[in-house]
Amino acid sequence: MSLHHATSGEKIDIHPLGDKLTQTASTALLRTADLEVMRVVLAKGRSVPEHHVSGEITIQCIEGTVEVQAHDKSQVLTASEMLYLEGNVPYALNALENTSVLMTILRKPEPTDSDAAKYD
Amino acid sequence: MSLHHATSGEKIDIHPLGDKLTQTASTALLRTADLEVMRVVLAKGRSVPEHHVSGEITIQCIEGTVEVQAHDKSQVLTASEMLYLEGNVPYALNALENTSVLMTILRKPEPTDSDAAKYD
Repeated sequence: MSLHHATSGEKIDIHPLGDKLTQTASTALLRTADLEVMRVVLAKGRSVPEHHVSGEITIQCIEGTVEVQAHDKSQVLTASEMLYLEGNVPYALNALENTSVLMTILRKPEPTDSDAAKYD
Repeated sequence: MSLHHATSGEKIDIHPLGDKLTQTASTALLRTADLEVMRVVLAKGRSVPEHHVSGEITIQCIEGTVEVQAHDKSQVLTASEMLYLEGNVPYALNALENTSVLMTILRKPEPTDSDAAKYD
């Protein structure tokens, strides 16, 4: 994870990674007390196993093709599609192509560490 | 504003509007107690006057070119760039080209109506 988090008024680059995708790590772009934005990079065939986070999330596909399993169904996201999930809804990701997604997470106070740790 | 708001697990289309931009209204895509996501459509030359919302926001440029004034400076966003602003930071938008932006707003309890009303 990147150690730099955006501050108020700072531009954040979310261009597709293209050829650099497979050499790029997932990155936390923004993290405040209430909000977390990260780019999750998944090379083709990589998955994020089913889990849940306490806060609401949106998953926006920046590039590639990713299968999202949630609410007992599977949906495919391509660039410029996003999915909203309520808090505590289990979901899994499976990259059908080299994919990066922008995850926006409403952080909820928890005794444990950040949800972002799951993507480290 | 669209009356349909996404529910958990529902896909949301945020493709560029392209030729349809100037015939498309700003749309609330998602609205929950804590989170609001809307596409704000600004034809070239249109502005959103300086105002602030109580919660944190991200402004993501989907297409076009938009000048964002905040924190006593002006920054230009083009597609795949976003800007983060803390709550209560005054900002204004000025479309330099036909533009649509995705606004993600953390809603804070307020005695008044939704911040979204400013874009109606």
